[in-house]
Amino acid sequence: MDKITMMANADHLILMAISEDISSEDVTTNSVMKEARPGKADLICKQDGIVAGLPIFKRVFELIDNEVKVNLLVSDGEAVTKGQLMATVEGDMRSILSGERTALNYLQRMSGIATYTNETVKLLGDSKTKLLDTRKTTPNMRIFEKYAVKVGGGNNHRYNLSDGVLIKDNHIGAAGGITEAITAAKEYAPFVRKIEVEVETLEGLAEAIEAGADIVMLDNMTPETMEKAVAMAAGKVETECSGNVTKENIERLTSLGVDYISSGALTHSAPIMDVSLKNLKPID
Amino acid sequence: MDKITMMANADHLILMAISEDISSEDVTTNSVMKEARPGKADLICKQDGIVAGLPIFKRVFELIDNEVKVNLLVSDGEAVTKGQLMATVEGDMRSILSGERTALNYLQRMSGIATYTNETVKLLGDSKTKLLDTRKTTPNMRIFEKYAVKVGGGNNHRYNLSDGVLIKDNHIGAAGGITEAITAAKEYAPFVRKIEVEVETLEGLAEAIEAGADIVMLDNMTPETMEKAVAMAAGKVETECSGNVTKENIERLTSLGVDYISSGALTHSAPIMDVSLKNLKPID
Amino acid sequence: MDKITMMANADHLILMAISEDISSEDVTTNSVMKEARPGKADLICKQDGIVAGLPIFKRVFELIDNEVKVNLLVSDGEAVTKGQLMATVEGDMRSILSGERTALNYLQRMSGIATYTNETVKLLGDSKTKLLDTRKTTPNMRIFEKYAVKVGGGNNHRYNLSDGVLIKDNHIGAAGGITEAITAAKEYAPFVRKIEVEVETLEGLAEAIEAGADIVMLDNMTPETMEKAVAMAAGKVETECSGNVTKENIERLTSLGVDYISSGALTHSAPIMDVSLKNLKPID
Amino acid sequence: MDKITMMANADHLILMAISEDISSEDVTTNSVMKEARPGKADLICKQDGIVAGLPIFKRVFELIDNEVKVNLLVSDGEAVTKGQLMATVEGDMRSILSGERTALNYLQRMSGIATYTNETVKLLGDSKTKLLDTRKTTPNMRIFEKYAVKVGGGNNHRYNLSDGVLIKDNHIGAAGGITEAITAAKEYAPFVRKIEVEVETLEGLAEAIEAGADIVMLDNMTPETMEKAVAMAAGKVETECSGNVTKENIERLTSLGVDYISSGALTHSAPIMDVSLKNLKPID
Amino acid sequence: MDKITMMANADHLILMAISEDISSEDVTTNSVMKEARPGKADLICKQDGIVAGLPIFKRVFELIDNEVKVNLLVSDGEAVTKGQLMATVEGDMRSILSGERTALNYLQRMSGIATYTNETVKLLGDSKTKLLDTRKTTPNMRIFEKYAVKVGGGNNHRYNLSDGVLIKDNHIGAAGGITEAITAAKEYAPFVRKIEVEVETLEGLAEAIEAGADIVMLDNMTPETMEKAVAMAAGKVETECSGNVTKENIERLTSLGVDYISSGALTHSAPIMDVSLKNLKPID
Amino acid sequence: MDKITMMANADHLILMAISEDISSEDVTTNSVMKEARPGKADLICKQDGIVAGLPIFKRVFELIDNEVKVNLLVSDGEAVTKGQLMATVEGDMRSILSGERTALNYLQRMSGIATYTNETVKLLGDSKTKLLDTRKTTPNMRIFEKYAVKVGGGNNHRYNLSDGVLIKDNHIGAAGGITEAITAAKEYAPFVRKIEVEVETLEGLAEAIEAGADIVMLDNMTPETMEKAVAMAAGKVETECSGNVTKENIERLTSLGVDYISSGALTHSAPIMDVSLKNLKPID
Repeated sequence: MDKITMMANADHLILMAISEDISSEDVTTNSVMKEARPGKADLICKQDGIVAGLPIFKRVFELIDNEVKVNLLVSDGEAVTKGQLMATVEGDMRSILSGERTALNYLQRMSGIATYTNETVKLLGDSKTKLLDTRKTTPNMRIFEKYAVKVGGGNNHRYNLSDGVLIKDNHIGAAGGITEAITAAKEYAPFVRKIEVEVETLEGLAEAIEAGADIVMLDNMTPETMEKAVAMAAGKVETECSGNVTKENIERLTSLGVDYISSGALTHSAPIMDVSLKNLKPID
Repeated sequence: MDKITMMANADHLILMAISEDISSEDVTTNSVMKEARPGKADLICKQDGIVAGLPIFKRVFELIDNEVKVNLLVSDGEAVTKGQLMATVEGDMRSILSGERTALNYLQRMSGIATYTNETVKLLGDSKTKLLDTRKTTPNMRIFEKYAVKVGGGNNHRYNLSDGVLIKDNHIGAAGGITEAITAAKEYAPFVRKIEVEVETLEGLAEAIEAGADIVMLDNMTPETMEKAVAMAAGKVETECSGNVTKENIERLTSLGVDYISSGALTHSAPIMDVSLKNLKPID
Repeated sequence: MDKITMMANADHLILMAISEDISSEDVTTNSVMKEARPGKADLICKQDGIVAGLPIFKRVFELIDNEVKVNLLVSDGEAVTKGQLMATVEGDMRSILSGERTALNYLQRMSGIATYTNETVKLLGDSKTKLLDTRKTTPNMRIFEKYAVKVGGGNNHRYNLSDGVLIKDNHIGAAGGITEAITAAKEYAPFVRKIEVEVETLEGLAEAIEAGADIVMLDNMTPETMEKAVAMAAGKVETECSGNVTKENIERLTSLGVDYISSGALTHSAPIMDVSLKNLKPID
Repeated sequence: MDKITMMANADHLILMAISEDISSEDVTTNSVMKEARPGKADLICKQDGIVAGLPIFKRVFELIDNEVKVNLLVSDGEAVTKGQLMATVEGDMRSILSGERTALNYLQRMSGIATYTNETVKLLGDSKTKLLDTRKTTPNMRIFEKYAVKVGGGNNHRYNLSDGVLIKDNHIGAAGGITEAITAAKEYAPFVRKIEVEVETLEGLAEAIEAGADIVMLDNMTPETMEKAVAMAAGKVETECSGNVTKENIERLTSLGVDYISSGALTHSAPIMDVSLKNLKPID
Repeated sequence: MDKITMMANADHLILMAISEDISSEDVTTNSVMKEARPGKADLICKQDGIVAGLPIFKRVFELIDNEVKVNLLVSDGEAVTKGQLMATVEGDMRSILSGERTALNYLQRMSGIATYTNETVKLLGDSKTKLLDTRKTTPNMRIFEKYAVKVGGGNNHRYNLSDGVLIKDNHIGAAGGITEAITAAKEYAPFVRKIEVEVETLEGLAEAIEAGADIVMLDNMTPETMEKAVAMAAGKVETECSGNVTKENIERLTSLGVDYISSGALTHSAPIMDVSLKNLKPID
Repeated sequence: MDKITMMANADHLILMAISEDISSEDVTTNSVMKEARPGKADLICKQDGIVAGLPIFKRVFELIDNEVKVNLLVSDGEAVTKGQLMATVEGDMRSILSGERTALNYLQRMSGIATYTNETVKLLGDSKTKLLDTRKTTPNMRIFEKYAVKVGGGNNHRYNLSDGVLIKDNHIGAAGGITEAITAAKEYAPFVRKIEVEVETLEGLAEAIEAGADIVMLDNMTPETMEKAVAMAAGKVETECSGNVTKENIERLTSLGVDYISSGALTHSAPIMDVSLKNLKPID
């Protein structure tokens, strides 16, 4: 995650997370350590996976105490294995103890998402189909979770309701038809927006292509219809397939030939990757 | 979740989550609906479980548009089943479409935690042992996740580093011993804090009891030692057992007789409970 | 401006603007009116133009005092003329006096932009070319200024650096060429982003088309080259022409046949439209 | 603009402006530059004028990336000419590209105001009359715009409703008369406030002087009455003349002998001064 | 305190104070009352004094729960006596219990200041001298404390460093003399600012008058010199006397004839006025 | 006050206090000093007492200008005497002048509380009774005031409504009895909370002990009853005595043998300790 994004959009959230965990002070640590005491700890991987969120892990400590040094030994996106030393944290032991939980909470969740995404991407094998995330993210975690998807090898769908157009049933109903909805969106939306529209039939697909859609989401189609739809779309619009896609069930979709498969599970149901801060010791 | 907590501590987070999903406007909806258009939608349960977060689901819509009416048909903590209608949402369809995702993101995650917690609590059967959460929560979600644990039948451990004392290895090392650490904490911490201390041996336990600990966390003990520890603690200090406890492995611990078992999995690894907003239709 | 956008993204800015003008209290008004005193004032147009920002004008008073009633007699986008009564404001005179300046500051600026945009759009006559704004907006006014452009009949370019891809010289240089830059952007950016690239030659244009650009910005071309470029682009990529375009000089560009012309002047140099709150009188 | 004002009152606004332009990340730049790449660019003046806002220009980059170095070659208030190199910006090219627009948006607007103010001040020639700004500023830009007026050689009227007393028609009406209004203001307002009152007749002026006003705003008077008013006020109260004053029409007022002329146009209608960041090149 | 000031400048502080006291929830109240339960309580005065802050007291409950009704029986500025019923609070007992402490903390402090101010003002007897506050207020309480001074019959000095000019020793030193400092301030400050300058000698006073000061603060003068200074200043500048003025020692200054005496003790050392919320009872 | 607490919980409040005092700029200082001018000033104690808040005093200057150096010569908790030099402040004189008042406002108030607390603690002599603060703090000052109590030798009661359970009359009434209330609290509250309950009779005390209360607040008891209560509580629950306790009247309570006495006066009625920044002089 680059420095500017961090400053402009992540720092505020990280600071809130720190205050969530320290609403007045770390009373245990302050009871026993009245003065700074330099120490060092190891960030250990407890489970195989793809690590994501190390810059956030590091940033938590920097925001708490800019004299803490986090020395990263791996980078986001690398495969790590159980027992591997991923980083060392060095500085006032009080700062390390106070920042530990918040730093790990980010790292374990982001690495869990990257790992799950990566495993799912691998199931797509040689197909040209790409894996997308959705807006089914944890509130106030989207910037971290979408980043983790990308680290894991996935692609990002739109960031939110403001930066992408996705015309669904209700929008079509309100507009009075597929063509009308696409036309309205082209008229209204900033001109750099791609127009995506959900279609359920081949007729709908034909209409969407004719009306100038950029992407179609194929919804509720049988495999046979889907196949025809992909053929009809080829070279004209990009195709996306969605709906309760998980690591467990994605393989059935890989042969469909769609351009994109989107999966909410990447962000809402990936289990964490276990990580731990160990061996905190005073140093001289 | 009561009205005051919501106003003082949740609203701010919910508003941020709404802005996360609508950074300028819902461009699709605004393309096709230039004026308010009253409609109604159904909140449907897609998976059996324990529902949690309905007041948050409702609050999202109220904050977006105070004329949207959410009619809750079940309450937090109730068991719900696949296909069950849990609530209706009525108001300007644009508001319903714009709030849908954020409202569902809270509800599905909180219900997932309540469901997982509830299933885990049941595994404790008749034992007097209570199930606790930890601080392994998603950043900026703690207030919602700890609430969901309680809704699911679990108990809350400390909220954060400021409102509980938990003396670990490094604190004991810094203080110079168990007794010294407990004494320092009693001296320093607000007098309403219970003092919890991690012990790894029966000697440590004896020292902790002698020094006036309120709770001991039994760490790294064999089942036999744990049993002796529980006996030694009886009537003197409360006992907690921790460490990678999940729904899958908790049963081995139920016969230990400890007062509390804490599990980070409740908040960091519970899969979501699937919920959906369906049947949005214009009304007259 | 819809209610949700207002709540989620405009209210915060409006509140800051109110506090900017009332950092402790309206000391003059409070000196002479110790109690609420109902009154009514007229919002008068002082200059012909296209009005924009009436919902913001209204919102300022609602946020200051939710009992003030603003009765709008015209709507955003309408042509108004000098002397025309556009709205009435009724409520506690203290609230009207305290909110007047902030409400007018928004309205006069937004209407100025809508008016200037509208005059410029008209100069495009029957050509198929559309007028675009840019990111040359006043800091912390973008949401209002881009909305005013749309009200005036213009179209919006990307909202900011996060929701559109515009590959310039330096990006091409960094990537190692046009093709490399487009490929990198397609790989990296959320899949709903259109890819726009600046090209200065017909060769560059050919390369951009080949590499799959969605839009090309034709830069530094002679009219002849521009004409050839437009012909080459037809049916393959959309074309945008940019560079110090103002109301005074846009006509020379209308015959070029480009799809879009963008103009920073719309937001950075439109003079305000004069509006005034008059005839404040006590009512019974 | 001094460091303390910047920290206490400007930084917050600048950070918001940065986030307005980068709501998640600079997706174009991040597509092509994955790592820091040092570079250097030139800040070029594109139009003759008075420069204002260089410390803000610099601050934008510092807030984005504290390793970017902005080397200012001119100072606020200096006359600059088309083509002149005003500063260099050196640092990670990604930071330069990401901060460019926000930095320029502040600089071009503030310099536009300083330039327009300066040209207007010059029209006052040798007269003792001073030029004042008003509260007709762009929302959330007041601190920058009032500073720019001062840089351009103008003077500041009150900052907002809280730090100055200006008794208008409606206040006089509410108080029951000029004397009553002035008395009420002297009683109520912090004792360091000067009392300014609008008068429309010589009788009103006489009453205002008698009641102890510090400043009178002469409103709606014929040139002859104005002349008498100035004579009557001499040595007793300061005089201000207001009302749709622009660069185009100010000269008719210079011979009136009033102490101050205020002009809303300084902040609401000054066109920007064109500035540009050019020649960004990698450096070693 | 008027509605607009409250909304624009006080609400934010009040909300922070509420969150300071309820960082997650009112755990005691929520333990025993799971549902709303209507109740009513009495606001009782426990000490004679001048009440100030009732609108803030009321606002705390409104912000916590807009269905709580606070019925004020007295108004700010009234003399109240021990045992007097000042207001009733009616609504959900949980809201009353949760808001009680924050509401009282504001009221007791503000009433303490109003009471102390009022007692001090009375000691000035028939003299024309007015009592002023200072900037020695409690951080983040200034708006409330300065208001309380006014309620108690005192006058406000400048609100802060931005809205008043007070030239002290160090400023005079930096400018190179009294005349230079006054001239610089007149040149630089918004033209509605009065210029106040500290002088220690009659020569300094003469210079300040000559240079056009509006107010002089007479510092470190013997009573005899002070008397001469007041005579010299008469009709030319206002005079202020400052320096560790308390209720106990102000009488020695009343015969000096200065226009103003300022006292930091009003805001930094007034003891609270004891108030209490009593007789909370369920109602039907 | 440790660095982490400062960053996470105090900085935000300090910055707000700075902006409260500098809402646009320090107009006096900026009038006479256009450029940085290094200087040095002395922080002088003007009254004997216990100093508290020096890290906050220092932090104010660091936040205003990170090049100002504050050299502390004493530490929080030390007894200081009138005339003593406590610190020097060195840096740009403009920064020193602009930060002076806010820095002193914190320091004088916090030192006043520490001093008053310390004097009160001494009155407890050899008794085992400890002195507690309450929630009767100044809004938005709790973190500073509770810290000052601890610096003065007192102990902290709960921080707020969320981190402690204190069952009062109304809670008992709502629950249906002492036992029911304690049971409900044990069931509901995070398991690390101690349960404190107010009792007015020996029967109540007996019930509270039986129900498992951790602390009892003895309310409205005669000295004789109190004595019996303390005897009955010994070894079973801790005892707290409360109610209008001040330095003047605490001695009557010292022989009661209660574990804790709480006093709101520590934070709501301690007079400030006078401190002053003197001898500001330019340095080379």
